[in-house]
Amino acid sequence: MRTVSARNLLDVDDVTRTELSALLDRAAAFKRDGATRSLLAGIPVLNLFFEASTRTATSFTLAEQRVGADIISFAPGTSSLGKGETIADTALTLHGIGVRVIVVRHPESGFARRLADAFEGHVINAGDGAHAHPTQALLDLMTLRDEFGGFDGLRVAIVGDIRHSRVARSNIVGMTMLGIDVTLVGPPTLLPAAMARAGVRVSRDLDAVLPEVDAVMMLRIQHERIDSSLLPALDDYTRNYQLNRSRLRALKAKSVILHPGPYNRGIELTDDALADPRSRYKAQVENGVFVRMAVLDHLVNGAAVPA
Amino acid sequence: MRTVSARNLLDVDDVTRTELSALLDRAAAFKRDGATRSLLAGIPVLNLFFEASTRTATSFTLAEQRVGADIISFAPGTSSLGKGETIADTALTLHGIGVRVIVVRHPESGFARRLADAFEGHVINAGDGAHAHPTQALLDLMTLRDEFGGFDGLRVAIVGDIRHSRVARSNIVGMTMLGIDVTLVGPPTLLPAAMARAGVRVSRDLDAVLPEVDAVMMLRIQHERIDSSLLPALDDYTRNYQLNRSRLRALKAKSVILHPGPYNRGIELTDDALADPRSRYKAQVENGVFVRMAVLDHLVNGAAVPA
Amino acid sequence: MRTVSARNLLDVDDVTRTELSALLDRAAAFKRDGATRSLLAGIPVLNLFFEASTRTATSFTLAEQRVGADIISFAPGTSSLGKGETIADTALTLHGIGVRVIVVRHPESGFARRLADAFEGHVINAGDGAHAHPTQALLDLMTLRDEFGGFDGLRVAIVGDIRHSRVARSNIVGMTMLGIDVTLVGPPTLLPAAMARAGVRVSRDLDAVLPEVDAVMMLRIQHERIDSSLLPALDDYTRNYQLNRSRLRALKAKSVILHPGPYNRGIELTDDALADPRSRYKAQVENGVFVRMAVLDHLVNGAAVPA
Repeated sequence: MRTVSARNLLDVDDVTRTELSALLDRAAAFKRDGATRSLLAGIPVLNLFFEASTRTATSFTLAEQRVGADIISFAPGTSSLGKGETIADTALTLHGIGVRVIVVRHPESGFARRLADAFEGHVINAGDGAHAHPTQALLDLMTLRDEFGGFDGLRVAIVGDIRHSRVARSNIVGMTMLGIDVTLVGPPTLLPAAMARAGVRVSRDLDAVLPEVDAVMMLRIQHERIDSSLLPALDDYTRNYQLNRSRLRALKAKSVILHPGPYNRGIELTDDALADPRSRYKAQVENGVFVRMAVLDHLVNGAAVPA
Repeated sequence: MRTVSARNLLDVDDVTRTELSALLDRAAAFKRDGATRSLLAGIPVLNLFFEASTRTATSFTLAEQRVGADIISFAPGTSSLGKGETIADTALTLHGIGVRVIVVRHPESGFARRLADAFEGHVINAGDGAHAHPTQALLDLMTLRDEFGGFDGLRVAIVGDIRHSRVARSNIVGMTMLGIDVTLVGPPTLLPAAMARAGVRVSRDLDAVLPEVDAVMMLRIQHERIDSSLLPALDDYTRNYQLNRSRLRALKAKSVILHPGPYNRGIELTDDALADPRSRYKAQVENGVFVRMAVLDHLVNGAAVPA
Repeated sequence: MRTVSARNLLDVDDVTRTELSALLDRAAAFKRDGATRSLLAGIPVLNLFFEASTRTATSFTLAEQRVGADIISFAPGTSSLGKGETIADTALTLHGIGVRVIVVRHPESGFARRLADAFEGHVINAGDGAHAHPTQALLDLMTLRDEFGGFDGLRVAIVGDIRHSRVARSNIVGMTMLGIDVTLVGPPTLLPAAMARAGVRVSRDLDAVLPEVDAVMMLRIQHERIDSSLLPALDDYTRNYQLNRSRLRALKAKSVILHPGPYNRGIELTDDALADPRSRYKAQVENGVFVRMAVLDHLVNGAAVPA
């Protein structure tokens, strides 16, 4: 049954809450039963990564292979595409050639949207600037659901450089859609108070938040910030926000630790945190492939969602 | 029936006029009926793009997928290939490894020929310097034939920077083979009088030519020329050669507008020209995949051409 | 029958002598009978080439296609991988995503080993610095076995820049495992006496060695050394170590000439040497694909080696 569903996944809220549940169900079914390569057979999917990526690009490529898509991959420099032509003209051309799905990563917030506005097929945002990274949020949600069986009453802390994190933004969108209680934790420079919204609280005090939550998501401090003049403040940062041995004791026994990767060991978390049995990093990367398969299948083949 | 046919497609005249018709027939059949992936199953095709390209590389890749080739893609820097070895040795190595078709783009005119001289398989020129871009010409010819049912008595104007355009050169070759009446239009700096040849006229006066032709092909003004000291002259150029609203009125009702893309909107043509119902840009990019499938099939599997 | 076998191929001695023979048998069977694409069907193989490569990357890609693997290819800059994360974390992530085999080339000696220590799947070293290039050695061994039917009593000279050559190092390892009598030949700066080991002799005198050997492997003089201040010494080098017309006369009639490619014609050998009927360059590149197929099959599906 082909029913109306989202055309693109630019952020998590491109799907309804019902579709979001269906997506996670589909991902779980792929994880349990595998998928057939006929799902996207003969459908050209273009991976257009303007930013270097190994893990996300690999995960998307594997997902595309497992649903049987025809894969085309480019890593153009940000300036080379179209030799001055508009995004709209590029989109028109790529669709004319036969491309039906574009998976796009770009350093500019909003790029995926502009591409999608002009492209007649489907666009999946694989990360645009500090804006959104919806498949990362989906894999986090899948990991939480695998763990807790659902989202009712769940409390999650997202910790670190919220301001610059597309991972945090997309998770906030998805988690509030699902009724998860979200607390953002970080220093004022990395977490403006204005980021609070309905269902989201802001805290400066990780130690107060940790014992309350079912999951803590530690964000990556970006390398260019560590290397910069912010280094003197790094001691402050790790003292207040690093997930280390003493803070691990404050976490509930039945909680989980999430991290989008790649890690900076010794910065946002210590080796202890990564070795902790509550760490779900491996489940996250595994689930990433299944949610991406589900998104591809959902966008191309539609949702079999009861009306 | 396997009959003698071209081994390479370095420019349009590597095929006979009979083969050229057969190629366009084959492309039309692929467009109408699709193709089976057994046509090039197990045949390794190497895409070797020394120049950045998204549209042409995507089009070739899709074509290769649809005929079932084994695809290998590289975007080497122009200096890295072979670490000082000769093109002949590179060609020998690639054939020894098992590569049977090389699709090559290179900034140097004549590179494809030099590669083909040494490579025992098939070479398809995907653009070499200002020299040739035969599959672009084939897609233009296919678009004209779709439109007019044939080439008899057809009159075409090619407008703009003829001097630096491999698209123009290959179209001139193909169109004169088919008896199309070609008029080249542009300023003296971009269109030396010496470019006229049998069946090809030269004009400086676009307004005189437009009412006479069945198709007008607007070439791209290359970005590096727009950005350069040629900018003062750009006003002159657009006044004399831009396809704009008033010139659209001079075009026959049953004519078509072609452009190889990517566009510079506001330079060689205006938004009106692109939105005009006579514009065939979309057909051109669609046909590009079918002619490339036909070329691959023709070179590898031979022409079933009556003697 | 799945028996215990090597998990990785970082250098030739990761396999036992028995496995090495089985590998060469398998490669020969692939050469004779072809392979089915079910051998690695659904197995994700990641080509991770930190150094530019066309020939080796093409050869691996074709091998992967012929055994039916799911291929993912990246050419990351050496600095971009992991954005500061450890190799161990990258390896964990890639395995979590589903990658089962990594084919890695890296300018740093030992990189493949460090990756393999952390990666739960299989790592194939496609060249790490001046350390090892085991599949190149396997293709050389296969070429010798094709020629001589076995390795008993075989005498081989390896000539040139032994010091910087991963090809030489891996061949020394493999040849001594098989009981081949190896003589290294080169000037003191490129061949430290300390490189001699059990079963390996060192000589400065190519003319004395040539009449004694069944095979001579001419190494490539790297372009950056030719272009450098070493140029004045190049005359000396070619006078003493170049394989040229007069030295070809000293070679046995039933010997063979090997070279890993790419050549520097006129440096380590002349056109005469390449045109000589004893040259086996073409067989080497052909065999490269078959040994790589055999390694992939061996690592993933195990050795059917009698205990």
